[in-house]
Amino acid sequence: MTKISEIGEFGLIHEIKQIVDKNYQNYPYLQCGIGDDCAVIDGGNGVSQVITTDLLVEQIHFDLLTTPVSHLGYKSVSVNVSDIYAMNAVPKYATVSIGVSESISVEMIKEFYQGVFRASRGFSVPIVGGDTSASIAGFLISITVVGEQKSELVSYRNGTKEGDVLCVTGDLGRAYAGLKILMRERLQMLEDIKENNQNYHPVFEDYKTVIQKHLLPKARKDIIEEFAKYGIKPTSMIDISDGLASEIKHLCRNSNVGVLIHEIKIPVINDTKLIADLFADDTTTYALFGGEDYELLFTVGKDMISKIELMEDITIIGEIKSKEFGVKMLSLEHEYVDLLQRSGFDHFKSGTSNQKNNLDNED
Amino acid sequence: MTKISEIGEFGLIHEIKQIVDKNYQNYPYLQCGIGDDCAVIDGGNGVSQVITTDLLVEQIHFDLLTTPVSHLGYKSVSVNVSDIYAMNAVPKYATVSIGVSESISVEMIKEFYQGVFRASRGFSVPIVGGDTSASIAGFLISITVVGEQKSELVSYRNGTKEGDVLCVTGDLGRAYAGLKILMRERLQMLEDIKENNQNYHPVFEDYKTVIQKHLLPKARKDIIEEFAKYGIKPTSMIDISDGLASEIKHLCRNSNVGVLIHEIKIPVINDTKLIADLFADDTTTYALFGGEDYELLFTVGKDMISKIELMEDITIIGEIKSKEFGVKMLSLEHEYVDLLQRSGFDHFKSGTSNQKNNLDNED
Repeated sequence: MTKISEIGEFGLIHEIKQIVDKNYQNYPYLQCGIGDDCAVIDGGNGVSQVITTDLLVEQIHFDLLTTPVSHLGYKSVSVNVSDIYAMNAVPKYATVSIGVSESISVEMIKEFYQGVFRASRGFSVPIVGGDTSASIAGFLISITVVGEQKSELVSYRNGTKEGDVLCVTGDLGRAYAGLKILMRERLQMLEDIKENNQNYHPVFEDYKTVIQKHLLPKARKDIIEEFAKYGIKPTSMIDISDGLASEIKHLCRNSNVGVLIHEIKIPVINDTKLIADLFADDTTTYALFGGEDYELLFTVGKDMISKIELMEDITIIGEIKSKEFGVKMLSLEHEYVDLLQRSGFDHFKSGTSNQKNNLDNED
Repeated sequence: MTKISEIGEFGLIHEIKQIVDKNYQNYPYLQCGIGDDCAVIDGGNGVSQVITTDLLVEQIHFDLLTTPVSHLGYKSVSVNVSDIYAMNAVPKYATVSIGVSESISVEMIKEFYQGVFRASRGFSVPIVGGDTSASIAGFLISITVVGEQKSELVSYRNGTKEGDVLCVTGDLGRAYAGLKILMRERLQMLEDIKENNQNYHPVFEDYKTVIQKHLLPKARKDIIEEFAKYGIKPTSMIDISDGLASEIKHLCRNSNVGVLIHEIKIPVINDTKLIADLFADDTTTYALFGGEDYELLFTVGKDMISKIELMEDITIIGEIKSKEFGVKMLSLEHEYVDLLQRSGFDHFKSGTSNQKNNLDNED
């Protein structure tokens, strides 16, 4: 009997992929299976359907002590919709299933669905069904989102070539800064509960920008709409769930290319820097390995740079190189750092963490 | 704080539906949301997409002591595909997510996916993605299947009218008979484990037909194919997951009609009768309330009877009446029994059971 911790989550996904991949050739309408943000299915008439799904487990993916349950509802939908946008597609409908143990009240479930509903409205994706179940331990959530796009406009991870530029939306590391604050307050709260101390009230107000980014990440609907407006099709795209370094590695491995990014260009806001300083951490580490920002990382041909510059909130952080060049960052100290040397998180190997890994976004 | 057990699963689903239903009018492409076997979405060009999802939790929906994990993989896919067939649609692709605790080995997961893969092949539905997660307690499974059909051929629960005939595929109560045997053997096994007795080996061979029906229910692909072959479109349809009585009630409530079924016509095989006798139970009770047979219950106009008679493995068990007539069974003793008087199972109210209830198949 082999324990899962012996092979890790990526090892497990590899085993599953071996079994499931076997008969893909029998389904010519299947354009992409396991190995991208979404699976892609030819729906006929030049339109593709894309599908993504997440299974979220209390104490593995979230902690109800620091996560308001309505935020959890919003985030669960938002991060799946983010996978749809990462294919340059538009979400059409979603299902939401929940498993609830004795400790979960009807009021909590209603609040959860208020958050789900807010995301549903915000991203124009109706919740069309789902399932409810009892649970042995804690709160379980399973969400599936189906989207669509003209087949020729779907962006995969494997489409970029040497000479393309690498772009990122928004700013990075902020969600991780928020998590650091939440974890600190959580420890304090647990201590207070132990000591029956009623006096301590966590002050989140000062850290609102970073905590909100962690608890309520907003999938980048606006970016996909601007791509359509300006006639931009990214040559490759992925959403940043596990940190910039991990996502860059996926794009490079899938596209069989290398990359050079410039540390100085990685967009980080001041609030993130302040919190990194507070914990005596390195800000770039937050951006590279923090994860959960749910920004979009994408590439376009050089001919698109003038159009990209018309869009707000996008930063060009590097350029695609040959595979032989490797996956590197030019640091602030003008040194070339190999980004392949540090691996992402793996919650099967490292115990619980706030990281999640999808069948569809790992291979 | 309201406990879920106070309002029950149907009460909970009602609460969720209240929140989720609010903005359906904003999505004209949504043909049917919560309240049928699948949600139905207008995919354009006269084709509809249908979607169904299940969340299955160890110790709530299945027991690994009596369920080989490969069978569990097969069944998880089969029962979702069954929901697709219940809309008279064809499954196109599926996602499978799992949550696994420390007690689950890599070998078990591989076996699970062997079962998933067997169903995937048998029902021609590729597994295109999914998610993997750690779990705090036991094995978690979430499956979503998307299917399609010409919009005009989709069968709903609400389409039958007075004068139609009510038909059922296969035989009923067999899965429940299988469950009875498995539960008996499970008790024996638990006792043996407690007493460290190595001598007792359960003999399942004699009960193969009923146990297989419980562990490996086969969604009725053949029936949907025959409908297409003979040009039959059921006026309403549902799959039998919770027992004949419960499904009949759904059809009648949704279609605003009554029904008269004839106990003598309910198809039950001898093996089921023998086991009901063994436990001194009533065979019709197995058929009416046992559930998990995953046969199809459907209605057709009288003009279709000649075509239905060309098909194998279908029994006409009753006729649709006015709403005022009620929902009744003419018993073997020539008495009219009111089927609305006995309610289905509800695992939130009755503790764990082998019943499952979907958002999409309850309202």
